Amino acid sequence: MKNLDADNVTEAVVASFRRTRDERLRRILESLVRHLHGFAREVRLTPAEWKAAIDFLYAAGRISDERRNEFVLASDVLGLSALVDLLNRPEGATESSELGPFYNPDSPWVPLGADIVRGAAGGERVLVRGRVTDTAGRAIAGALLDFWQAAPSGLYPAQDPAQPADNLRGRMRTDEQGRYAFVTVKPGPYTVPYDGPVGALLRAGGRDAWRPAHFHFIVSADGHVPVVTELFPADDPHLEKDAVFGVRASLVFRYVRHETAEAAAPYLVEPPFYSVDFDFRLAPA
Amino acid sequence: MKNLDADNVTEAVVASFRRTRDERLRRILESLVRHLHGFAREVRLTPAEWKAAIDFLYAAGRISDERRNEFVLASDVLGLSALVDLLNRPEGATESSELGPFYNPDSPWVPLGADIVRGAAGGERVLVRGRVTDTAGRAIAGALLDFWQAAPSGLYPAQDPAQPADNLRGRMRTDEQGRYAFVTVKPGPYTVPYDGPVGALLRAGGRDAWRPAHFHFIVSADGHVPVVTELFPADDPHLEKDAVFGVRASLVFRYVRHETAEAAAPYLVEPPFYSVDFDFRLAPA
Repeated sequence: MKNLDADNVTEAVVASFRRTRDERLRRILESLVRHLHGFAREVRLTPAEWKAAIDFLYAAGRISDERRNEFVLASDVLGLSALVDLLNRPEGATESSELGPFYNPDSPWVPLGADIVRGAAGGERVLVRGRVTDTAGRAIAGALLDFWQAAPSGLYPAQDPAQPADNLRGRMRTDEQGRYAFVTVKPGPYTVPYDGPVGALLRAGGRDAWRPAHFHFIVSADGHVPVVTELFPADDPHLEKDAVFGVRASLVFRYVRHETAEAAAPYLVEPPFYSVDFDFRLAPA
Repeated sequence: MKNLDADNVTEAVVASFRRTRDERLRRILESLVRHLHGFAREVRLTPAEWKAAIDFLYAAGRISDERRNEFVLASDVLGLSALVDLLNRPEGATESSELGPFYNPDSPWVPLGADIVRGAAGGERVLVRGRVTDTAGRAIAGALLDFWQAAPSGLYPAQDPAQPADNLRGRMRTDEQGRYAFVTVKPGPYTVPYDGPVGALLRAGGRDAWRPAHFHFIVSADGHVPVVTELFPADDPHLEKDAVFGVRASLVFRYVRHETAEAAAPYLVEPPFYSVDFDFRLAPA
């Protein structure tokens, strides 16, 4: 290790991990070291550029807390989160998409058809409904849906003192036919947080910070692979340039407008309102 | 961007940076995205493994502060810092090595030959001396040496309430012949900080956290490329397994033992003592 040079240092680092007990971890570290070094070598990274990268990570750490994770955001805007989703999609299941930084695991339990608007949010009313099935199309009764969304303003409750903390989110179990349904308002599009190092990166890169409007879901059931995903309205102007690469064609829906209360049956929502029909498919575990 | 898959997502992310105004930054981001994605694709990174990587970065942010930078340490143990040094060495100059986390830019100015031991440190006395020259061997008068080291215990003042804050460090200018000299004690080897996520990584990897003993230097002069480097004693037991890959054969010295005060002339140190003779070479800027 005394005669390291720019060519042999990579093998020395890989060798330093040779006693890693977990074989999967050893393989991951070896690949990480080779690609990290390959990057530095390819661009001939300078000490000043290395320092800028360290400062980026340090600043990301400073701005992160229990409610905001800048490292997740960095992974999102670099497309790593999307790639991991795309590499791991179980055959035949609903496609997955970003978890995002606003998931809160303690959403209130609500009954089938519940109205999840807990404050005066304004906006257009929406009935979201569908079924949870396995990949063969068989209903899954008692599947758990955990859902959350931004208000029409584009703000989540965690960002907006005007909203109750449990606004626009809930947990629900499907009925015997695998059905779920809730009443809400159309979410608005928004920009990812722009005040940290990731925002500076997006600006330097001449990139847009917009995300199209979306509903978030985690759908799970015993014996099946859970799906973390998002649904996007087809009429959103930001659909083609999502800052975090979360859009999938199979996750895009159309709002259908209704003028009569009967169209909502058996659920309750005053006309005019929109409906979203989307079925989730879970693969066997 | 609606039809992303595990193959085309990388090009979509690269394309998102096409408006980056700084051409060098655009090239770096493109290479970073390709290598980051290449890594995830090669190991087929799972969501749980991605989450573990995010948690590592988040924990590194939590434990970092003005006095400790866990991201620098992560770069060091992954050999990235060493690679950047090795890629950027100016022809004919002294080799560079890690800055490390204990550099403090406000070290006191001291005269040529100063004793930099400001507390009762114990340990064996050392006279460190030499010259600063250009790559043609011509003396550089007025070159700035900024130096710091751990105590014989292996602790830096920032880690050790028993040491004065400015113990074992100083700033000095070379004389007309390019000479520098200071009197100190032998630094001890130590382990890199082991209580954070990098420590957990080293343990999981079956790796040693030891660094061989060393003196730190930043040597600079007008019109020359500054050198950040370390000097290592040849008798250190950890020389072959430095946790941060900082050792270079050209930076290893031998302590020479002296039994008489005359051997220190014109500087002052009581026998017995050791001397280290090391000349620094700076490349033109």
